[in-house]
Amino acid sequence: MLKIGVDAMGGDFAPEAAVKGAVMALERIASDSRIVLFGDRARIEAVLEAEGCPADRFDIVATTEVIEMGDHPAKAFQAKADSSITVGFGYLARGAVDGFASAGSTGAMMVGSMYAVKPIEGVIRPTISSIVPTVGGRPALLLDVGLNVDCKPEVLAQYGLIGSIYAEAVLGIEKPRVAVLNIGEEEAKGNAQSKATYELLKADTRINFAGNVEGSHIFSGRVADVIVCDGFVGNTVLKMAEGLYRINKALGVDNAFWEAMNYENVGGTPVLGVNAPVIIGHGCSSPKAIRSMILSTEQCIRADLTAKLQRAFRK
Amino acid sequence: MLKIGVDAMGGDFAPEAAVKGAVMALERIASDSRIVLFGDRARIEAVLEAEGCPADRFDIVATTEVIEMGDHPAKAFQAKADSSITVGFGYLARGAVDGFASAGSTGAMMVGSMYAVKPIEGVIRPTISSIVPTVGGRPALLLDVGLNVDCKPEVLAQYGLIGSIYAEAVLGIEKPRVAVLNIGEEEAKGNAQSKATYELLKADTRINFAGNVEGSHIFSGRVADVIVCDGFVGNTVLKMAEGLYRINKALGVDNAFWEAMNYENVGGTPVLGVNAPVIIGHGCSSPKAIRSMILSTEQCIRADLTAKLQRAFRK
Repeated sequence: MLKIGVDAMGGDFAPEAAVKGAVMALERIASDSRIVLFGDRARIEAVLEAEGCPADRFDIVATTEVIEMGDHPAKAFQAKADSSITVGFGYLARGAVDGFASAGSTGAMMVGSMYAVKPIEGVIRPTISSIVPTVGGRPALLLDVGLNVDCKPEVLAQYGLIGSIYAEAVLGIEKPRVAVLNIGEEEAKGNAQSKATYELLKADTRINFAGNVEGSHIFSGRVADVIVCDGFVGNTVLKMAEGLYRINKALGVDNAFWEAMNYENVGGTPVLGVNAPVIIGHGCSSPKAIRSMILSTEQCIRADLTAKLQRAFRK
Repeated sequence: MLKIGVDAMGGDFAPEAAVKGAVMALERIASDSRIVLFGDRARIEAVLEAEGCPADRFDIVATTEVIEMGDHPAKAFQAKADSSITVGFGYLARGAVDGFASAGSTGAMMVGSMYAVKPIEGVIRPTISSIVPTVGGRPALLLDVGLNVDCKPEVLAQYGLIGSIYAEAVLGIEKPRVAVLNIGEEEAKGNAQSKATYELLKADTRINFAGNVEGSHIFSGRVADVIVCDGFVGNTVLKMAEGLYRINKALGVDNAFWEAMNYENVGGTPVLGVNAPVIIGHGCSSPKAIRSMILSTEQCIRADLTAKLQRAFRK
């Protein structure tokens, strides 16, 4: 039985949205997958009852505390030892669940990733990534999207390999094209960081290097399946896309491409380069967004992503 | 008589598109403005004849050479002394025209800006900017959009002031809100560069500082009228917007907000911080785009932008 750990107390509308999303996910997960909910047992059961869902469809791990958005992530992770996130990471670290997802405190999720499950040996700095839609229909992976600003080229080059492994294992893209986000297509273009990253990725025979990709082609799908960038740039790209999605929504634009930008369909942000699948959901996650997040987590687990990353960085 | 210098040989479809655009601009410019075309006299007059436009509606400065896209900008600027761009900058530098616009070699336009008209004293590094539409309808100014990657905070802080002066003088925005493009709204967010820029702009009493603006609000208009960023990030934002515009166009999305993203309506990229109005058009400019570029140039001249910038940086 594969176990998907889910923080029932995470997100602005928890536990209702989280538990409803988990119920929605039941229809989609495999018969040998089981969702483990971490949180206030009475509140979880109340939502399940209201949903007409038998409580025995889930494992429930009762916790008594919640790390709030205003809490200091590192301090709260330790001080609130019985919080849903801290307990969830305890289960994850000792293999009692196979992955963990939460729409709660991003900071606490990162603390858990870095100090409970820890970076994979050989990975300089773990990363958070985002799946972006392309007009061709095939998704691309953008990383880093905000965890690491001021990245060294060596760190970005590792993101190329990490992204390539993710795209192949989880997105099912064969020999994914890896490119550096840059201000021109030519090799000599860019800032010091992007030029040095280009050289490192070009020399890496484990990936299918596609050179530079400009901002105009992030969503065209014509150049790259994996787009490597500094977290400052990636975060700006991601938030700009979110902003334009909202503007389009308000203007009545409705098509499959833009709907794929909707965070509800994206399934959260994988933390990559740590020793277990961790997915962070949007704070304002709806039940549908929670369902996507749970399904992404199951995908990462089934793809054996962590083992593949560990092998790639083994000396 | 105000004189608007226009390179008739610049752009992928020159001289046809450039001359047609100039003819289209005649209807919109003020009666005391005159367009000065630089280029091959016979070819310019042939296009004018085909358009049914009397040649005496323009001043024509005959030139015999063209700086091609493949030429080395700095070398060609010198070697092709009778090129439309080199001659145009000569006129601009000695005040024989009041502004100069071209859809030709961006590199050569920058060489002319830096070495013929020169940076304004006190400006560390001139910048190229772009007007971006907002859903509210009021345009915003994004700078730098690709000239300077790896910007020092002192350079970015100057862009805040330069952008503020442009937004007020040319866009007619009173006390424009100036913000730093960043990955979070809070003061402590960002990379080393954005944090230091924040501090410098916060201390600058000449501008209306609005703090940080996230990527999600570049096009909302809710936070800022002038958005300051490193050229690497700004170029990515601009190209991403162009790419999404093209995708929307292909998907049949048609509304005023996205149409304002169309480069044909934007009017080119002003070079700011040099001693005369210089506007660089898109290489693939259509006649309509050339018209917009000419009208932007006229606007910069009429707004007395250069003098306002010079006064701001005078010690």
